[in-house]
Amino acid sequence: MANYIEVFDSTLRDGAQAEGISFSIEDKVNIVRALDELGVKFIEAGNPGSNPKDLEFFRRAKEMNLKNSSLVAFGSTCRKGTKACEDANVNALLTADTKYVAIFGKCWDMHVTDIINTTLEENLRMIEDTVSFLKGQSKVVIFDGEHFFDGYKANPEYAVNALEAAVKGGADRLVLCDTNGGSFPSFVYKVTKEMVERFSVPIGIHCHNDGGMAVANSIAAVEAGAVQVQGTFLGFGERCGNANLCTTIANLQLKEGKKCIPEENMGLLTSTANNIAEIANIILQANEPYVGASAFAHKAGMHADGVIKASNSFEHINPEVVGNERRFLVSEIAGRTAIVKKINKLFPELDKNSPEIRDIMERLKVLEFEGYQFEGADSSFELVVRRRLQKYEPFFELVNYKVMIENPYEDGCSATATLKLKVGKETRLVSAQGDGPVHALDLALRQALVEFYPTLEKAQLIDYKVRVLDSREATAAKVRVLITSSDGKMTWSSVGVSTDIIEASWIALVDSIEYKLLSDREKLQQ
Amino acid sequence: MANYIEVFDSTLRDGAQAEGISFSIEDKVNIVRALDELGVKFIEAGNPGSNPKDLEFFRRAKEMNLKNSSLVAFGSTCRKGTKACEDANVNALLTADTKYVAIFGKCWDMHVTDIINTTLEENLRMIEDTVSFLKGQSKVVIFDGEHFFDGYKANPEYAVNALEAAVKGGADRLVLCDTNGGSFPSFVYKVTKEMVERFSVPIGIHCHNDGGMAVANSIAAVEAGAVQVQGTFLGFGERCGNANLCTTIANLQLKEGKKCIPEENMGLLTSTANNIAEIANIILQANEPYVGASAFAHKAGMHADGVIKASNSFEHINPEVVGNERRFLVSEIAGRTAIVKKINKLFPELDKNSPEIRDIMERLKVLEFEGYQFEGADSSFELVVRRRLQKYEPFFELVNYKVMIENPYEDGCSATATLKLKVGKETRLVSAQGDGPVHALDLALRQALVEFYPTLEKAQLIDYKVRVLDSREATAAKVRVLITSSDGKMTWSSVGVSTDIIEASWIALVDSIEYKLLSDREKLQQ
Repeated sequence: MANYIEVFDSTLRDGAQAEGISFSIEDKVNIVRALDELGVKFIEAGNPGSNPKDLEFFRRAKEMNLKNSSLVAFGSTCRKGTKACEDANVNALLTADTKYVAIFGKCWDMHVTDIINTTLEENLRMIEDTVSFLKGQSKVVIFDGEHFFDGYKANPEYAVNALEAAVKGGADRLVLCDTNGGSFPSFVYKVTKEMVERFSVPIGIHCHNDGGMAVANSIAAVEAGAVQVQGTFLGFGERCGNANLCTTIANLQLKEGKKCIPEENMGLLTSTANNIAEIANIILQANEPYVGASAFAHKAGMHADGVIKASNSFEHINPEVVGNERRFLVSEIAGRTAIVKKINKLFPELDKNSPEIRDIMERLKVLEFEGYQFEGADSSFELVVRRRLQKYEPFFELVNYKVMIENPYEDGCSATATLKLKVGKETRLVSAQGDGPVHALDLALRQALVEFYPTLEKAQLIDYKVRVLDSREATAAKVRVLITSSDGKMTWSSVGVSTDIIEASWIALVDSIEYKLLSDREKLQQ
Repeated sequence: MANYIEVFDSTLRDGAQAEGISFSIEDKVNIVRALDELGVKFIEAGNPGSNPKDLEFFRRAKEMNLKNSSLVAFGSTCRKGTKACEDANVNALLTADTKYVAIFGKCWDMHVTDIINTTLEENLRMIEDTVSFLKGQSKVVIFDGEHFFDGYKANPEYAVNALEAAVKGGADRLVLCDTNGGSFPSFVYKVTKEMVERFSVPIGIHCHNDGGMAVANSIAAVEAGAVQVQGTFLGFGERCGNANLCTTIANLQLKEGKKCIPEENMGLLTSTANNIAEIANIILQANEPYVGASAFAHKAGMHADGVIKASNSFEHINPEVVGNERRFLVSEIAGRTAIVKKINKLFPELDKNSPEIRDIMERLKVLEFEGYQFEGADSSFELVVRRRLQKYEPFFELVNYKVMIENPYEDGCSATATLKLKVGKETRLVSAQGDGPVHALDLALRQALVEFYPTLEKAQLIDYKVRVLDSREATAAKVRVLITSSDGKMTWSSVGVSTDIIEASWIALVDSIEYKLLSDREKLQQ
């Protein structure tokens, strides 16, 4: 088995075919930057023939001076009855001006005869001619054998003939595609091994996830001798998605001794995954292997206790290796130990059997019952603990607010908030207009406080999420609002719950600001 | 290989250890009902020893008269230095009063010596004694060999000794657990095969998903001769979760000719998955294999065209087999064909090159750019098409609304909506109070319209979702609101987008009501 595995990322091409995904040119540039930083070998970035936006992207990308990655333009073989050199799409590929091109061709006889309606011979001609033409243009040609595994099942001889046509044309890689995503690892292993033994051209693997086994199929192919793994970084793609490269890289590099990315970059895996999720505007699933927020989160008391004694007792790798972290969850079944560990980070002097800890536990239970989750909102958790323990003096006090929303509205501002609050003995009454009720309220709150607490000038909300708790209650359901704030140096998150989305947002806003002011005060006192 | 595979669902036990999951007794009863309906063999339902709620659940469950499933109580071996017959937890297991019990015991020497701090011999005694005691109580005993694969790697002889102790005690099943979830299919296959050959007691498999390969590992074990597959129905569980049974059942039954659930129930798979997601209050991922909303959704134009010609060209199975459906997505890269097919469902007379279709396409592009997604909101899609095509006459017209939100507030109602609208020549002005601004507005709208359209009495919102579109814009970000409604017979979804969450909700509310009224009118005309 080869030691170096070429990682071939198709987030920008196959990933863009996922439901709900759509990239601007700026998004694409940012994803390329993240993948290059991580050290991915190939980035398949689109099809300049079918999309003018892709062409514009390749123009932009050329100025990027990538350190580790090479861009790949993607297209299909020439059309039936057309010479490759005269085919508009094949020629459009060249406008991307990349050293590497990936072209796909049909390997399943049924697809040739019933979908593109041509003869088996003509399809072989199209493959060989296209590869050969591109080689003549000094390209490195990666041949994607579309539906290779299904084709092999239906007519193994023809599937192999298709690869042979690519080899005759001069292909530099033969990629076996499980396009419909329904193959099993044992089958992928067997067939890949056969191809590795048959061809001297290096073999790659491209799996879809319709059977939930795309990662395992990719691993099986590598075990059989494949040297290139294609997928999308977070696994999203058409239908059930592609092989998740983030998981595949970690599996191969940490468990099979392969080299996929530079050793020193493994610690960037989690931040890269979060970054790409942000750009793609998707939620990185908490249970995502290696990089998810829950990937090393322990809830069962016994497991938490075990991990505290020996981390490998319930963790397959050390989370730090991939830049992730161990967490002990605050919940009904969480052992007391885990929560105490969390509280002791703030107040090392508290004993786990003390009445204070008991009291905090009770309070947490009540709040969880109401719908709070502190798992993603450490600053609200800290405020709960502090409010319960100390003679905690709030930085301000709400007298009342009123928010008015109108439709139709003027000046682009649909909402007006009026807010009355007290700071010490002073009272302030302010009004602000915004794009919506929460925006108006946020502006009013900052306006009222900045005179007393000038550091708030630099604090701002950078993320706002809403989760409907029992969505079956529809508009009368409880909502949980999660706010992330930043002052340019530190980032913190807070949470609020209510049946009224404005009130839930208010609670999270207040926690966000109190936490900032508290941190500032502690810094002053240090 | 055995033909019948026992499906062992641990959603209520291992699943409850997932971050963010918490079941009431009612939830548990409903999940048992769904799994029984589907025909799952075993349902592991909790640990009456560690949780009084679980005990109460078993009491309730006994009255359920399950058709297909058997409940399993779960616990651990007796403690070190204690006889099983005198161990409180082991005895608590009996209070569940189930025919089947699953108990786990340590198979990894390090866990024995470093985590539970006892000798290797004592651990074997604990296993044998516990199994034997439970057999004496006429239980069928499933022995879960915790950390079996990691234990086998570290000390194969001891791992096997642990299983042997269970066999001596009389265990009816030996389940090999990949507790830390980091094993690879090739290793699981090899080790499982060895155990199948060594023991006459039937072997089971229990995999976690920390390497993203829990389903593949379970399949590998079955290929090696395992006859029981443990997991959680939707894959959620501690850290990265367990083997997803929904995917595993489909893989085994549709692709490997195994029997996991009654043949005639395969079509319930998608609805069962949605139902359990609802009860667990999680979002069933759209790209979930077999049962996700995107699992058979085609976006790339070429793929959509292919599927129209021959469904197996880009689908690994027929979606109807698992009760799911094929969809053609409306998007930038979607081929015109797919969108036309969707429009032709409504207006079969329109030609795909007609100016009307071109005009609708343009309109869809603008709306998508603004943040609309019609992928989950077919009724809003239909209204866009109708509004564009026909002299569409709306059922009512908004004059204006004002919503006032106050804090503090009285009577549990934080919001008051005042709404003025026109139905034909009549004008109505109404007010309503609610738990939040959207609730108040929804009540006001229904109050104003029900006099004109009495069928609205039966229509209600059953789901309300909010998605912040560019969450980095924080409180000034655009939000997309998705509303699902039902009148007891039909269910439909609508969508609204705005920077103001109230306005976005209003747009979706209006679509929801217009769609209902439109359907009623068409039914009358038929």
